[in-house]
Amino acid sequence: MHRLGVYSVCLALLAPGTRAADPETLSGYTAQSSKTEQEWEAKFRALPDLANLRAYMQRLTARPHHVGSPYDKDNAEWLLAKLKEWGLDAKIETYEVLFPTPKERVVELVAPARFTAKLQEPTVAVDPTSSQHDEQLPAFNAYSIDGDVTAPLVYVNFGIPADYEQLDRMGVSVKGAIVIARYGASWRGIKPKVAAEHGAIGCLIYSDPHEDGFFRGLDFPAGPYRPKDGVQRGSVMDMPVRPGDPLTPDVGATANARRLPLNEVETLTKIPVLPISYADAQPLLSALEGRVVPEAWRGSLPITYRSGPGPARVHLKAAFNWDRKPLYNVIARIPGSAAPDEWIIRGNHHDAWVNGADDPVSGTVALLEEARGMSVLLHQGWQPKRTIIFCFWDGEEEGLLGSTEWAEDHAEELRRKAAVYINSDNNNRGYLAVSGSHTLEKFINSLAREIPDPETKLSLWKRLQFGRISAAPANSSPAERQEPRTRADLRIQALGSGSDYTVFLGHLGVASMDIRFGGEGDDGAYHSIYDDFYRYTHFEDTDFSYGRALAQIAGSAIMRLAGADVLPYDFDDFTDTIRRYVDEVEKLAADMRAEIIERNRRLDEGLFSAVDDPREKLLPPPRDIVPPYLNFAPLENGFSALQRSAEEYRRALSKASANGGSAETRGNLRDLNAKLIAVERALTLKEGLPNRPWFQHQIYAPGFYTGYGVKTLPAVRESIEQKQWKLADEQIARVGKALENTGEAIQSAAAELARVAQ
Amino acid sequence: MHRLGVYSVCLALLAPGTRAADPETLSGYTAQSSKTEQEWEAKFRALPDLANLRAYMQRLTARPHHVGSPYDKDNAEWLLAKLKEWGLDAKIETYEVLFPTPKERVVELVAPARFTAKLQEPTVAVDPTSSQHDEQLPAFNAYSIDGDVTAPLVYVNFGIPADYEQLDRMGVSVKGAIVIARYGASWRGIKPKVAAEHGAIGCLIYSDPHEDGFFRGLDFPAGPYRPKDGVQRGSVMDMPVRPGDPLTPDVGATANARRLPLNEVETLTKIPVLPISYADAQPLLSALEGRVVPEAWRGSLPITYRSGPGPARVHLKAAFNWDRKPLYNVIARIPGSAAPDEWIIRGNHHDAWVNGADDPVSGTVALLEEARGMSVLLHQGWQPKRTIIFCFWDGEEEGLLGSTEWAEDHAEELRRKAAVYINSDNNNRGYLAVSGSHTLEKFINSLAREIPDPETKLSLWKRLQFGRISAAPANSSPAERQEPRTRADLRIQALGSGSDYTVFLGHLGVASMDIRFGGEGDDGAYHSIYDDFYRYTHFEDTDFSYGRALAQIAGSAIMRLAGADVLPYDFDDFTDTIRRYVDEVEKLAADMRAEIIERNRRLDEGLFSAVDDPREKLLPPPRDIVPPYLNFAPLENGFSALQRSAEEYRRALSKASANGGSAETRGNLRDLNAKLIAVERALTLKEGLPNRPWFQHQIYAPGFYTGYGVKTLPAVRESIEQKQWKLADEQIARVGKALENTGEAIQSAAAELARVAQ
Repeated sequence: MHRLGVYSVCLALLAPGTRAADPETLSGYTAQSSKTEQEWEAKFRALPDLANLRAYMQRLTARPHHVGSPYDKDNAEWLLAKLKEWGLDAKIETYEVLFPTPKERVVELVAPARFTAKLQEPTVAVDPTSSQHDEQLPAFNAYSIDGDVTAPLVYVNFGIPADYEQLDRMGVSVKGAIVIARYGASWRGIKPKVAAEHGAIGCLIYSDPHEDGFFRGLDFPAGPYRPKDGVQRGSVMDMPVRPGDPLTPDVGATANARRLPLNEVETLTKIPVLPISYADAQPLLSALEGRVVPEAWRGSLPITYRSGPGPARVHLKAAFNWDRKPLYNVIARIPGSAAPDEWIIRGNHHDAWVNGADDPVSGTVALLEEARGMSVLLHQGWQPKRTIIFCFWDGEEEGLLGSTEWAEDHAEELRRKAAVYINSDNNNRGYLAVSGSHTLEKFINSLAREIPDPETKLSLWKRLQFGRISAAPANSSPAERQEPRTRADLRIQALGSGSDYTVFLGHLGVASMDIRFGGEGDDGAYHSIYDDFYRYTHFEDTDFSYGRALAQIAGSAIMRLAGADVLPYDFDDFTDTIRRYVDEVEKLAADMRAEIIERNRRLDEGLFSAVDDPREKLLPPPRDIVPPYLNFAPLENGFSALQRSAEEYRRALSKASANGGSAETRGNLRDLNAKLIAVERALTLKEGLPNRPWFQHQIYAPGFYTGYGVKTLPAVRESIEQKQWKLADEQIARVGKALENTGEAIQSAAAELARVAQ
Repeated sequence: MHRLGVYSVCLALLAPGTRAADPETLSGYTAQSSKTEQEWEAKFRALPDLANLRAYMQRLTARPHHVGSPYDKDNAEWLLAKLKEWGLDAKIETYEVLFPTPKERVVELVAPARFTAKLQEPTVAVDPTSSQHDEQLPAFNAYSIDGDVTAPLVYVNFGIPADYEQLDRMGVSVKGAIVIARYGASWRGIKPKVAAEHGAIGCLIYSDPHEDGFFRGLDFPAGPYRPKDGVQRGSVMDMPVRPGDPLTPDVGATANARRLPLNEVETLTKIPVLPISYADAQPLLSALEGRVVPEAWRGSLPITYRSGPGPARVHLKAAFNWDRKPLYNVIARIPGSAAPDEWIIRGNHHDAWVNGADDPVSGTVALLEEARGMSVLLHQGWQPKRTIIFCFWDGEEEGLLGSTEWAEDHAEELRRKAAVYINSDNNNRGYLAVSGSHTLEKFINSLAREIPDPETKLSLWKRLQFGRISAAPANSSPAERQEPRTRADLRIQALGSGSDYTVFLGHLGVASMDIRFGGEGDDGAYHSIYDDFYRYTHFEDTDFSYGRALAQIAGSAIMRLAGADVLPYDFDDFTDTIRRYVDEVEKLAADMRAEIIERNRRLDEGLFSAVDDPREKLLPPPRDIVPPYLNFAPLENGFSALQRSAEEYRRALSKASANGGSAETRGNLRDLNAKLIAVERALTLKEGLPNRPWFQHQIYAPGFYTGYGVKTLPAVRESIEQKQWKLADEQIARVGKALENTGEAIQSAAAELARVAQ
């Protein structure tokens, strides 16, 4: 331990995307430590077992197991027992969280005809667990407020801000109305949020068969897609503001935590919301008159989609038990032999909306099998240098409760110790899908080159590369189309929100990744009672071979991160990515400027009324003030600092390499690794994002108006999108400063590397 | 007459797209003749009368009037009487054509369940003529062969060649099957043609509500869109090979014409075809199993669209009376006072599939009102210089029979005399839509600047410009987006086929235009019994104000062409357009080359099998030979000649202008006009297009595999598209020669202009 063969580190880092000249030497390792690591990883990768994965899933999904349910606790205790049985140091960490559950749910059409929505997913004969109605949570949206409203109905498409701009042009107001939005295009919580901003008093969300049903393929049980009575449950907490227990912002929801009164909570919806099936939605939508909606708004129901308002009038009633429920995070720990205060954390939630075979158990079982595998290695003498922490989160579905409360509870320690968090969630067949911190892009690319794809036997990397080549849109530029062939590393996506990495990356600034497989299955039972063992083993990763692949790559990643002499962050792919983001926001500002100038010109010319069809009148869009030119210099200066320091780090490695091909230990690596860990932290600012201080990371955040969907350089991008030009200028300066700070952090690591390698 | 104020001609031609410096002077006119012309046009434009248009439509659509029906003849006689009543020299020219009508029609699902298609459009209570079942032609596709077949069904999307490439990749063969295709993406006749090429033995064509029904808007009678039992009739004659009476290719179908025996006819389908409604299609499509089809193939029926083949088995029987029917073209003639042998021809058909209010009577009534208007002017002393011929065609729907037989019958005379043909057909509300010879682009642009749009009171031109600005696709380049603002003239479209201009432009090389309004209505009753007076006056151009606008612009165009001293062809917009076409075919060849190289590379790499989902296997596409580089030099040389001569014509005008601002007659304009008329003729080649010699124009033709859709530089473009590289090289040389010939024709006109203006 503490040995650094600088030569090998350099080679690996200086030959991006290709194997080092010595094909056996891993980045961040010496030739010797690399060989040892690879032997252990090879042993590990042979361990995940298809039958185990299947048996775990069958056990964990045997009954509904949402937060507060008996089987949720039962699963936690079973997981704990398993981990202990394998000799791991495991415990349950409990928090007490607000979790409203339905007391009364009514959706009725009261005019021009009467129809009462069933709000019930029926038993499917071939599917044994679909009949467990006594234990199933009914279909609802968690953290909707109570409400009892009757009003004209308006169809708002996906219910995102652009849809309301279109409604304005159509002369349709939702003030005082109940809106009906289809699932899709944004995270669901955005729909009631934006509806309320526009004056609606209630919100229904339904699954249109176009996005989620027979249009996509055969429906359950003939095929995997959502049947007519299937409903998507889900949280509508205002998570882009902050996730976690609404009563205990910023702190862990321990038994004695100070709690807000319900009326001071800021992340509940402003209006009542319920999700419905398309069988329940169709009579409502059919009863709408008014304008035929634009083509892109039309789904796959056999009706002419119209906007309303009315004559359909709807009665919506939702009442909840505003109870606190215990949640059970199961945490296991393998102490690090050399750097116990550097933590590699791996998590997946175990709670579900109902039986949850796809979401989340397909990922949970991989995590469990990783833990088993490492326990086997421990018995054989394996010792990770860093501490590994396995987390089986509870309460993810309601609002990332388990992970957020745990991380808030342990925030101070995590800020000091957490090096990397690796998340997974629902898993299916297909392609490797990695999102995360771009300092880890090169690392995960090299691992993906080593592990075979179950279906093709190619490496995961090669299959993904082919997938990217194949998927390049026809209208992309030749350079974009060739990138998957020419760039050393395949790009990973940025992380927004939607799973338990959120608190680690967005709040604490811990370099994070989310790893799954997908692209060949579907999520046609997402958050419904049909997401269960029967359906998963008939239509998704039926033999669990992608569950095994997930355990192999995520487990190997954990081991390799925990075993490296020097943490294998990379700042070249990172810098390359930041350059793209900077270009994007600069282009966004220029495009919006041009667009506003063009639109104002059209208003001056009278173009909008000239192209109007008198039988389908559209109001002209509003006039905007032509935006000022923004001062992007601070962002460019920040980027410049980043680029210089990344080069410096590369030079330091290069020099160390030249000096010390066969060198032994040249210093204490603890400081170097600490400085490397600090780099991601430098990307955060304590004051957070405008209007949502909990989110501190300045590169990645969920969009305020997209929900899960990421906004990179969020403070800058969203100020521009929302036409807050003064704020945009301020945020450019702040984010530029964060980039400069990060540059300094990298430079400091570079200096330390130069020092230890002398 | 025969006077040429060269100065004024020059000004008009040298200030493209703007009014001449003297705002009153028309292109091709002297200051004096221009003033006179404008006074007559102003009188003319005040004449078309909304009540007349309405009354004509009511009369003409009162009963079904397809070729061979009693009311078709009755209408012809009524039109003749009207024209004569107004003092015009009119007559009926009769031809005898093959027109098969249904004897028996059966479409049945025979397995896995039984269902018999209704094949009947029901009466709609509010719509009086929808009940005239005794006189209605049943729904069928004209020139389908007889057939009685039973076979497994395959869904082929739109049934165009690309769809069969996809079926090949899906491993689905149509050999021995009956295919079901939806209407759209190509002219209907392409569907059985391509199906037969792939071995199918029968073809059904249905109207999916996605393209043509409730997806688009409310269906009839609540709204204008096609109801569930509505069927689109239509011809499936192989018109891209040649239109017109199948028994008398190349010659007029006079009583004594030599006729082919039926078994030698080349334009019948190879397999039986019937059109059906979606109510009849849904049980068939629902009974298909096999692969779920690609997303772009799925329509708006509430089913999961699958390919088959089977288990659905279908029995299709179609038997026809193979009779000859008389057709009645009504032809009226206003003899030219100065140049009676230069003809300006104006046409619209009068026959319909059933009652045909939209198609064609909405256009026919405008034409009739133009004839009435000019008869009024004649009584007031107006004298057109050239001969004007009004044509009310019969038999358009079956295969452009009336216009083709008439023009073939009079071909020799037309080749000598016809200067311009202006067509219209169905008319609706919205924007001016002009397609045609680009030598007329500038001419029609300047007329469009003078006539007001009924809805906005802007000029037709201005509204269209706004429409073009507004419709510029978001992904178009800044230059493309700005073009409608910056280019002097709005572009007109090229003509393919689908109406009666075909023989004039494609076969005889007469400069042609098609003029209509549209874009705000719909064609939801196209070729069904519901296209009638009730529906037109409730949902389309209800007050006939666009009918009046059509009469105003088409009538003014006829008058202005007939009255000009010098025919106002323009070769600058024309040359600009040809440049685009040349660029397009060169890019097409380069793109196809790059695409084939890329595809072969992917085959070598094994990419296709690597990205395959094992549960939805796709076969790799076939390997193609990498195309040779084509020799585009002849096309570039031809273009160069064209460009030089266009410049020469412009210089000649300029010089004439400098010499003769106040000049009187300087020569006989007959030769100049004859040379100008010859320009469009020079774009034809006697040997026609590869495999379809009837089509002689080398710039414009209907696509061999699109039907109506135009292919510009067709011989070159289609050889490339069909990967016939050797043929492509030959055709480039031939088309290059045609461009050179055209250059010479323009040069000859330029020389003549220089001579007369000296």
